[in-house]
Amino acid sequence: MARTLRFSFDFISPYAYLAWAKLHDFAARHRLEVEAQPVLFAALLDAYGHKGPAEIPPKRVYTFKHVVRLAADQGLPLRPPPAHPFNPLLGLRIAALALPPTALRGVIDVLFARVWASGTGITDPVAVAEALTAAGHDGAGLVKAASQPEAKARLRALTDAARERGVFGVPTLEVDGELFWGQDSFGHIERFLRGEDPATAERIAQWEGLPAQAQRKHGQR
Amino acid sequence: MARTLRFSFDFISPYAYLAWAKLHDFAARHRLEVEAQPVLFAALLDAYGHKGPAEIPPKRVYTFKHVVRLAADQGLPLRPPPAHPFNPLLGLRIAALALPPTALRGVIDVLFARVWASGTGITDPVAVAEALTAAGHDGAGLVKAASQPEAKARLRALTDAARERGVFGVPTLEVDGELFWGQDSFGHIERFLRGEDPATAERIAQWEGLPAQAQRKHGQR
Repeated sequence: MARTLRFSFDFISPYAYLAWAKLHDFAARHRLEVEAQPVLFAALLDAYGHKGPAEIPPKRVYTFKHVVRLAADQGLPLRPPPAHPFNPLLGLRIAALALPPTALRGVIDVLFARVWASGTGITDPVAVAEALTAAGHDGAGLVKAASQPEAKARLRALTDAARERGVFGVPTLEVDGELFWGQDSFGHIERFLRGEDPATAERIAQWEGLPAQAQRKHGQR
Repeated sequence: MARTLRFSFDFISPYAYLAWAKLHDFAARHRLEVEAQPVLFAALLDAYGHKGPAEIPPKRVYTFKHVVRLAADQGLPLRPPPAHPFNPLLGLRIAALALPPTALRGVIDVLFARVWASGTGITDPVAVAEALTAAGHDGAGLVKAASQPEAKARLRALTDAARERGVFGVPTLEVDGELFWGQDSFGHIERFLRGEDPATAERIAQWEGLPAQAQRKHGQR
């Protein structure tokens, strides 16, 4: 039985797009089965009272630059969506439908490409349905299914499950229960797969037990 | 006149330690003059209502693992400080004193090594003074100077100035007014120095103007 490479993502994240573009080659090389799991990044931020990069003005602009640089490193097309942040629920709910792996991969390809490569976005149900149909899927059927309570419940369940496993950001890649956050994790995953991860349980136990000696309070400085 | 590589950092950040270890070789290779600027990371977080990695429980543990992996990549010693988060003000105020560049570099070396390599920490003024003295500096004098109002004001001014330039996290590296965030930025800085940064002003203008179509509200999902 092949090991699974679970990929937790939200279309809102350009880093998820960059990771998705490398994911399947990496998985094939290491005989891993990709399991793509959409999660609502905003719900993870809510759960931790955290802010996304797009919510801190200088970080928002920086993130755009960073992503342009990383896409250039990968030789990937990159065009901004019509708006950002945008509401990713339609895309996420489509990606949360129970589809065979190959179809799901194709569907996610179409959606990521609309957001980050062609700049067309995924908020308009008609345009999304047409794009999926053009790629050989039942676009209208998928968009309709995504609006059903089951699809909404499934995305919520995937998001909650990811949070319970310790996922706090996107993209997160998981092998054998070990989480790797970010599009730059492939080298570390490779080492983990070889059984050479330096972050051993013994090593990390020493860190986890560290007392917190300072908590932030306003006006501290 | 040599170009400047400004390095904004806080001892609290293990990523700043990792970057510091690569900084001077990189600067020498590219004929850049290092300008090390301590900033209080907690104040940047306060300014943006943001949380540091150590303030989100699963991210805190993840960060430890990530840093263990990155230190292994660099072949750098890494031992956790006695507590984390800890109060970095003593170290930052020492690093904010007006010292000649070579002395300042040596002082910062000692402080970073105490926090992240030897696990001894920088919150005890007596131990810090001794360590600085052992490295050939006037330890007692530096610790005393750091407790003066001038040193406190200087750290505050450096922090405010960094924020005004757009610094939102540590480490941040700056060349010609361009900010690069993170210990993994050296490749992108190299390309920038060659005049080949793909994140050109024209390219980024297209992104900066993006409307925000969705704002997070609680219970949205």
